[in-house]
Amino acid sequence: MSEAEPGPAPVDEFDWIRDCLTPLAADTPEALGLLDDAAVIASRPGFDLVISKDAVVEGVHFLPDDPLDAVARKLMRVNLSDLAAKGAEPYGYLLAIAWPKRHGWPARRAFAEGLGQDQRQFGLRLLGGDTVSTPGPLTASLTILGWVPQGRMVRRAGAQAGDVVLVTGSIGDGFLGLEAAQGGLPGLAPDQRAYLADRYRLPRPRLELISALRDCASAAADVSDGLIADAGRIAIASQRRLELDLEAAPLSPAASAWLSAQGDQDAARVLLASGGDDYEVVCTAPEPSVATLQRAAAALGLALTRIGRVTAGQGVEAQIGGRAVPIPRAGYRHG
Amino acid sequence: MSEAEPGPAPVDEFDWIRDCLTPLAADTPEALGLLDDAAVIASRPGFDLVISKDAVVEGVHFLPDDPLDAVARKLMRVNLSDLAAKGAEPYGYLLAIAWPKRHGWPARRAFAEGLGQDQRQFGLRLLGGDTVSTPGPLTASLTILGWVPQGRMVRRAGAQAGDVVLVTGSIGDGFLGLEAAQGGLPGLAPDQRAYLADRYRLPRPRLELISALRDCASAAADVSDGLIADAGRIAIASQRRLELDLEAAPLSPAASAWLSAQGDQDAARVLLASGGDDYEVVCTAPEPSVATLQRAAAALGLALTRIGRVTAGQGVEAQIGGRAVPIPRAGYRHG
Repeated sequence: MSEAEPGPAPVDEFDWIRDCLTPLAADTPEALGLLDDAAVIASRPGFDLVISKDAVVEGVHFLPDDPLDAVARKLMRVNLSDLAAKGAEPYGYLLAIAWPKRHGWPARRAFAEGLGQDQRQFGLRLLGGDTVSTPGPLTASLTILGWVPQGRMVRRAGAQAGDVVLVTGSIGDGFLGLEAAQGGLPGLAPDQRAYLADRYRLPRPRLELISALRDCASAAADVSDGLIADAGRIAIASQRRLELDLEAAPLSPAASAWLSAQGDQDAARVLLASGGDDYEVVCTAPEPSVATLQRAAAALGLALTRIGRVTAGQGVEAQIGGRAVPIPRAGYRHG
Repeated sequence: MSEAEPGPAPVDEFDWIRDCLTPLAADTPEALGLLDDAAVIASRPGFDLVISKDAVVEGVHFLPDDPLDAVARKLMRVNLSDLAAKGAEPYGYLLAIAWPKRHGWPARRAFAEGLGQDQRQFGLRLLGGDTVSTPGPLTASLTILGWVPQGRMVRRAGAQAGDVVLVTGSIGDGFLGLEAAQGGLPGLAPDQRAYLADRYRLPRPRLELISALRDCASAAADVSDGLIADAGRIAIASQRRLELDLEAAPLSPAASAWLSAQGDQDAARVLLASGGDDYEVVCTAPEPSVATLQRAAAALGLALTRIGRVTAGQGVEAQIGGRAVPIPRAGYRHG
């Protein structure tokens, strides 16, 4: 929906909440029918509540042309990915959204449909939030809540010297997927470009692994800002050093095809490990637990690949052929 | 800070979080030093967790010239006002904020200072959130958490026919305060304009009343969108009718002075009861509890005024001299 189209009929926020959001809070007594501007959550003895919050801005985190159901699903999955890395079971969410006037009923319905589709898939319920208008870009934040057995949340702090570093799935697809979604990567086959664009648009939060992570991992983070950056966050929180072997980083067939066509292989591997939006889980585990963790992943049909080692020291080091390679500061600092 | 000024040095979000936000999460083990992108909250047997979320957009909810420490404090207090109406004790918050590039260090420090000042005053702690950039207006959402004894949250549903409607403090100051903050209301004395502008900029969440509300009120809502609109929300949630006597609505000396200068007294009273940003509490209570509630308020130095009655039926009716007066649909629907 572009600025040039004639403006749609204005949407009353109250009507949107009643028609599109209230059904997402049905069968959820704690949401009080969205009539109370608050949710009330009973204590759950034996469990801790994990809370995280991520925001997206049109033109920064998603493309103005992205279908709004996909934007809603990505916002939800980005937050679910945080829960996955914590070993937490999804429970519910609050949504704050600032709508530009140019988004009429079709856009709002599409957004709510995306929320509904994914909340059913992942066992979430809408608990509350706020809807406002904005003269700027579509902006939304989602506060996600999950449960973990008491004291069992997987933290970023916890990696110990000698631990193994592992990562789920494949790395670099998010970075390449953004290019593909924007019509780039002409050297790849159409089905590879489609695969990558889909990986960028629709993250797969690795929730199937939460039980095994709680049992085996010493630390974990989701890969939202790039493998190197997020491994670096474990390093900072744990006050240890993570050494990553970029040649061991798992690549999809599409990313492998892209890599093989690059001139500077080392620089290309650093790029794949620095781009955001993979939404895999990078974790550390003591050597005796690695086999158990990998068996659990294999049973779930999920790749879980050794990519490095924790040592004494600070920060993150990316290696190729056993030698350290330069890593971009920006990729390491934030995404 | 206007668009015309030369751009400030860009701020790395990571640096802002480390320098300005991490101190707000100190002494808060559950925030994990903001290093984990999540907070973990232990179950508190015997208590329920109340969660609410409100968002603000520059140019919609605050003025581009408003000092950013005041914007932060208002965002926090708007959310605290929700907790007050629920009878909930403030606990913590998550902040998502989208910064325009033109806001450099002074703006960001001011915002964090406002958060710090009010979190100390109200016993809150920062638990987490997200910081992103935006090409649009400054946009922020705050997710607030509070505790209530198990099963004791004051809901909007709960008003019964025969109950009395009461409201704290004074009504209409937020509406007039916006005018005053924009340089309007030339007929008032300077100290009255200053009083009103301050009421608009810095809400006073009525948290002192939470215990009495839990003990005595059948329903409550905070007055964020106007007395008539928020009384209407109690009516909807309770499936009862609220009849409000607008002549009984408590006015500050400044609002009384403004009212006395208006030609159409009835229309002026409707305006005062339709404007937003008062952040008082409107509640209902059975007649036998009213005296207890009013004594509790008086002991706290807080006015609590009878303004109407709950009856069978639906919706809200505003009366002057015992007769219904027309109320604006917009004020009733949302603000």
